[in-house]
Amino acid sequence: MVGGGSGAFIGAVHRNAALMDGEISFTAGALSSTKEKSLTSGRDLGLPDGRNYASWEEMLEAESGLPPEERVDFVSVVTPNHFHFPVAHAFAEAGFNVVCDKPMVLDSAQASKLVETVERTGVVFCVTYNYTGYPMVKQARHMVQAGELGEIRKVIIEYSQGWLATRLEDSGNKQAGWRTDPDKSGIAGAVGDIGSHAENLVSTVTGLEIEAICADLTTFVPGRRLDDDANLLIHYEGGARGVMITSQISTGEENGLSLRVYGTQGGLQWRQEEPNHLIHTPIGEPEKILRRGNAYLCEEAQRATRLPSGHPEAFIEAFANVYLGFASAVRSRLDGQLRDDLPMHFPTVHDGARGVHFIEKTVESACGEKKWLDAGRPGDLNRR
Amino acid sequence: MVGGGSGAFIGAVHRNAALMDGEISFTAGALSSTKEKSLTSGRDLGLPDGRNYASWEEMLEAESGLPPEERVDFVSVVTPNHFHFPVAHAFAEAGFNVVCDKPMVLDSAQASKLVETVERTGVVFCVTYNYTGYPMVKQARHMVQAGELGEIRKVIIEYSQGWLATRLEDSGNKQAGWRTDPDKSGIAGAVGDIGSHAENLVSTVTGLEIEAICADLTTFVPGRRLDDDANLLIHYEGGARGVMITSQISTGEENGLSLRVYGTQGGLQWRQEEPNHLIHTPIGEPEKILRRGNAYLCEEAQRATRLPSGHPEAFIEAFANVYLGFASAVRSRLDGQLRDDLPMHFPTVHDGARGVHFIEKTVESACGEKKWLDAGRPGDLNRR
Amino acid sequence: MVGGGSGAFIGAVHRNAALMDGEISFTAGALSSTKEKSLTSGRDLGLPDGRNYASWEEMLEAESGLPPEERVDFVSVVTPNHFHFPVAHAFAEAGFNVVCDKPMVLDSAQASKLVETVERTGVVFCVTYNYTGYPMVKQARHMVQAGELGEIRKVIIEYSQGWLATRLEDSGNKQAGWRTDPDKSGIAGAVGDIGSHAENLVSTVTGLEIEAICADLTTFVPGRRLDDDANLLIHYEGGARGVMITSQISTGEENGLSLRVYGTQGGLQWRQEEPNHLIHTPIGEPEKILRRGNAYLCEEAQRATRLPSGHPEAFIEAFANVYLGFASAVRSRLDGQLRDDLPMHFPTVHDGARGVHFIEKTVESACGEKKWLDAGRPGDLNRR
Amino acid sequence: MVGGGSGAFIGAVHRNAALMDGEISFTAGALSSTKEKSLTSGRDLGLPDGRNYASWEEMLEAESGLPPEERVDFVSVVTPNHFHFPVAHAFAEAGFNVVCDKPMVLDSAQASKLVETVERTGVVFCVTYNYTGYPMVKQARHMVQAGELGEIRKVIIEYSQGWLATRLEDSGNKQAGWRTDPDKSGIAGAVGDIGSHAENLVSTVTGLEIEAICADLTTFVPGRRLDDDANLLIHYEGGARGVMITSQISTGEENGLSLRVYGTQGGLQWRQEEPNHLIHTPIGEPEKILRRGNAYLCEEAQRATRLPSGHPEAFIEAFANVYLGFASAVRSRLDGQLRDDLPMHFPTVHDGARGVHFIEKTVESACGEKKWLDAGRPGDLNRR
Repeated sequence: MVGGGSGAFIGAVHRNAALMDGEISFTAGALSSTKEKSLTSGRDLGLPDGRNYASWEEMLEAESGLPPEERVDFVSVVTPNHFHFPVAHAFAEAGFNVVCDKPMVLDSAQASKLVETVERTGVVFCVTYNYTGYPMVKQARHMVQAGELGEIRKVIIEYSQGWLATRLEDSGNKQAGWRTDPDKSGIAGAVGDIGSHAENLVSTVTGLEIEAICADLTTFVPGRRLDDDANLLIHYEGGARGVMITSQISTGEENGLSLRVYGTQGGLQWRQEEPNHLIHTPIGEPEKILRRGNAYLCEEAQRATRLPSGHPEAFIEAFANVYLGFASAVRSRLDGQLRDDLPMHFPTVHDGARGVHFIEKTVESACGEKKWLDAGRPGDLNRR
Repeated sequence: MVGGGSGAFIGAVHRNAALMDGEISFTAGALSSTKEKSLTSGRDLGLPDGRNYASWEEMLEAESGLPPEERVDFVSVVTPNHFHFPVAHAFAEAGFNVVCDKPMVLDSAQASKLVETVERTGVVFCVTYNYTGYPMVKQARHMVQAGELGEIRKVIIEYSQGWLATRLEDSGNKQAGWRTDPDKSGIAGAVGDIGSHAENLVSTVTGLEIEAICADLTTFVPGRRLDDDANLLIHYEGGARGVMITSQISTGEENGLSLRVYGTQGGLQWRQEEPNHLIHTPIGEPEKILRRGNAYLCEEAQRATRLPSGHPEAFIEAFANVYLGFASAVRSRLDGQLRDDLPMHFPTVHDGARGVHFIEKTVESACGEKKWLDAGRPGDLNRR
Repeated sequence: MVGGGSGAFIGAVHRNAALMDGEISFTAGALSSTKEKSLTSGRDLGLPDGRNYASWEEMLEAESGLPPEERVDFVSVVTPNHFHFPVAHAFAEAGFNVVCDKPMVLDSAQASKLVETVERTGVVFCVTYNYTGYPMVKQARHMVQAGELGEIRKVIIEYSQGWLATRLEDSGNKQAGWRTDPDKSGIAGAVGDIGSHAENLVSTVTGLEIEAICADLTTFVPGRRLDDDANLLIHYEGGARGVMITSQISTGEENGLSLRVYGTQGGLQWRQEEPNHLIHTPIGEPEKILRRGNAYLCEEAQRATRLPSGHPEAFIEAFANVYLGFASAVRSRLDGQLRDDLPMHFPTVHDGARGVHFIEKTVESACGEKKWLDAGRPGDLNRR
Repeated sequence: MVGGGSGAFIGAVHRNAALMDGEISFTAGALSSTKEKSLTSGRDLGLPDGRNYASWEEMLEAESGLPPEERVDFVSVVTPNHFHFPVAHAFAEAGFNVVCDKPMVLDSAQASKLVETVERTGVVFCVTYNYTGYPMVKQARHMVQAGELGEIRKVIIEYSQGWLATRLEDSGNKQAGWRTDPDKSGIAGAVGDIGSHAENLVSTVTGLEIEAICADLTTFVPGRRLDDDANLLIHYEGGARGVMITSQISTGEENGLSLRVYGTQGGLQWRQEEPNHLIHTPIGEPEKILRRGNAYLCEEAQRATRLPSGHPEAFIEAFANVYLGFASAVRSRLDGQLRDDLPMHFPTVHDGARGVHFIEKTVESACGEKKWLDAGRPGDLNRR
């Protein structure tokens, strides 16, 4: 692991998720950007001295020097966004498999370079768009691919949060701090942090490619430097239409990610905050509620489950499923045979590149003011 | 009543709603566009022969000739859209109070003329944006006006239906027939039929005025001549942002009208399909569920209720509330004193004009293609 | 109408429901127990002087004296409970069809006499267990009768309210006053007022007959003379088991009537507060949500609907459906042919008698203290 | 760990939960009842050879022989029910802290003996009534204890499942097999397996002690030897009333554990299948939805949370919270000071004893047939 030292929220989530199924163990790390903090964090987390590194560069060098069977099988990059590229790229270049947090890198140039490296070296590369790990998301993906909804006409994706409705970054909240700072977060706020999850969820479930974007980005909280609210109209290739709603200022919303897909033969609805069921509305029939853990689900949705139906699973388990899929691909590579039929879906370097491209285009679209038609007022209308 | 003869769905709803509270009786009508059908319908519905008219022109003449105390107190215009203007205008010009279905008229020119006439004659004029009659909508309006949400930042209004996902107009379905026919329905499909309800609901609850519109209108069903899906980004005066989602092809949706309002101090959520409660999310506090029929609601929400809490009220009762508000204003006028403080809100000719303007501007916006940014693709991305 | 004068809540509901569909008109009445109040109420409600009676006895005599084609077609008895028997019985004896509020009468002796009279005279008799009028209740009844749940094993019926959690009867609240007064309400409080609805709903949907009862009745509010909380274990004939939960002191509950039925092949769930859908859980399949107004519902559920799906109907409409069923049977009788296949279900004098019997047996069961096993405590347990 | 070898569902849950927070490591075990299977399972799960024992007796002897600082700090007993007593008792007697699955033991005699031993030796003893670990259950407990509901009047606890609606035990399903076998499961089926959870949840949240029980136990599936449906009326000390509904044959229910508590000042509702929120209905105010992860929750509910609000936690995390509470108490004991104010609640040997007592009394109550009043039928009633 690179990054994720003491105090970093997402590092703990990664470790928790990775270790959950006994497939992965935590053996080495460079857990912070400063030497002291790295070593202390690693010691606190039980890393053996020999593999508790002071920096990712030291870790790369040392692990590369070990015999292949003793090296780490992969590296998880869980640093702030601006470190993703240098670390992930260097390890991939050295032949290490990589798990990288999202957004994958800061711009398309970095993305292209990383894609090229991964394809050339053949390393397994995973971007933790963790919401794709939910069993009912896998079921949704399966149903769309199997044609159960007919031709997809419309997609509504929403990711509404309210935690940044006030100027939380001034209160010393670390999460708020770096996410609202363009130097660490990149060119986008809400769009980068949660919009990219939204984009990937649509892509994963429907396979639709974005053709054109019309975006409205707003910064509501005075003094903030990045957008905290973003709404998009989207045209997908093939004619489907999309609406994306994201916000960090929608008071009362917590982590309101939801997806709705409407096809000619039926619709699907899923909400992250109650992730154990999926609503299916076949045309002309009663609505159906599909629940995690049942035998009527597709095979991958069943395999992505640890507990019987009614015993709810949630965020961490879904995150762990992303690691499971990645780990299986890593084993395949170690066995010398990269299987075509991956046993469980996980987001790849291509998903990461698509996400970076989406962020750039969204910000670019938002700058074009020609899209707005001045509505005027009915001539004689004076509001009561 | 003009229009609403046998077979017309909305005519029965109007009668049902108008008569519910014993404030209004059904005394005269010209119920169809042909003489024979008018007279037969009126007879079936129990109109006395002397006031069962063969045409609205005949009705206008005959009722105008009666002594004032014997005339109808008002006329309800429930014809297809293209008859709204001639009928409503003629009766208003003759000094009759008018209830008119939505959208009020076909274009802004008609709207301006009607507003002018109504203001000049002083008749009471109501447009049946019936969803504003729900008690919990009145509560929402009250809370926004009272500042309980702080400054409004974002509004998400959605009106999703799925009933036109197939080419129902070819099956002889009357409702589908005229709604998809521009000669009877006007220049817009989904936008005109349900988008105008959505626009009015936002306006009624928040008081926000639209400043600019960016619309995406689509016709999904082959051969259909009007839009059956419309999504809008909206800028409101003062800086609030809006998203409007409307559709007639969202498979599985029935009459999915919902409103969410986010302010600096809290949010509100209401869904028409479960209209007896309103969700309030004050910042930093637990979410609250306000339920119809309780003493903690504002006065108007309490007066708009007939049954104790837990005994659900629904569509017809809300519609009846619009008539109640209108009837009260008519009584005030008959008493010679048009009260400033209307005892219950109802949508007026100004709301009607605003709705017509909205439809025109939305269609105009949708024609501007410059708003779309070609998204391209990440250079090296070939989808799996 | 007998009873239901000014100030009486349920009288207005009856009139509203009866008149909704234009099948019934309000032509005569004796609306209160005192002459003055009767006449004033009738005048306020627009009864013609000649048929605005001072007492039910006067009404009975006068209407009986009219030629058959001029008499009222039926009488609605909406008085407090203790007047139900004398009024309903006298009118039935005189050959009038009767609608009577629930509970039908005060005891089994009265019930038997009324059943005998109704059967002998052949009048149409309806008891307004209004919750049976909901379309989705009709659908549930259809599905059970059609065997879609297999053999019924378990029924959970709940009717929880909280409005009597405090001593509301001392505040001058009329509804609370007579409902907690055994002289007007009969031997039971919660059991009589809402338990009888619960009993009838189970009976209507499942057709199960109660074999044995084990009841726990409690009066929580000090000074109250009737039970305000009642919970029952029930054995049905054929082996099914039941639980009935009723309460007037369950703080936060409004009108929480819900029914769940579990059979060998699936289950059903319905909630009165959101009455437009019914949950069906076929064994081994996804849960299904059936919604009012759709073509996949049984014929009776479709006929009991006035509005398209998604346009919610509620309490009044369900109440009106009971009147519709009754009115149809009355027409059949007037036509000289009492049809076997009633066009729409309504609760009859037999349902009324079953309800009275249920109340008596429940109160009797509650008096038997032998059913309670003293639980003692684990010998060595001293609570922390 | 004793028990929980390969194929055992609950063993994996225990390990997952125990290891989640990095407070506990898995160091020794006797994982099955046969030597071969024990050793294989231990090897598969990565136990070092020296502490991978062939039997619990061997493990007890070996670990007892180690220096105190090298011994296991506690033992988790996750065997089938009939092994709970001998194993837990022996380890407690030897001074080891113990985690034991529920129901704790088979009868009151065993329970008393175990309580005595635990009190005498001072070991920390935890029974994994895992549902008490949910943060919102802790919040509910806090609110009741703080008097926010006033005096508790009524409790409705339900635990409905449908998985045993058919004779699953004949299909080779292990879980179904031992749970329906009195030799392994004890004297009760549904009551023992899920009723004991229900009993403990009420006890934990409300602190109420059961005074008297009236139980109805049924075996619906032919050939089954234990109850698969159990419904209870309960009197609590102090006058509160309770209803408990449990079932394994309620088709369509998955793991439907829900708790409702009604007091003089308000009510609470919680559902295990959507565990991240708690409904609070203060009298006369809007209903409140309290959500996990928010600052307005009590301290213990906040400390029992790993993820921000909106990022759902579920079954495993709640289970882990039980281990966290236990681990903290073990550390206190190791430090030589058993704190009075345990930092996080966990169920103790007393809860376990209470549960065993409850099962016995329920089965005893069910045998008393005098509680049933024959309902008869209204004399003249012949069902249509």
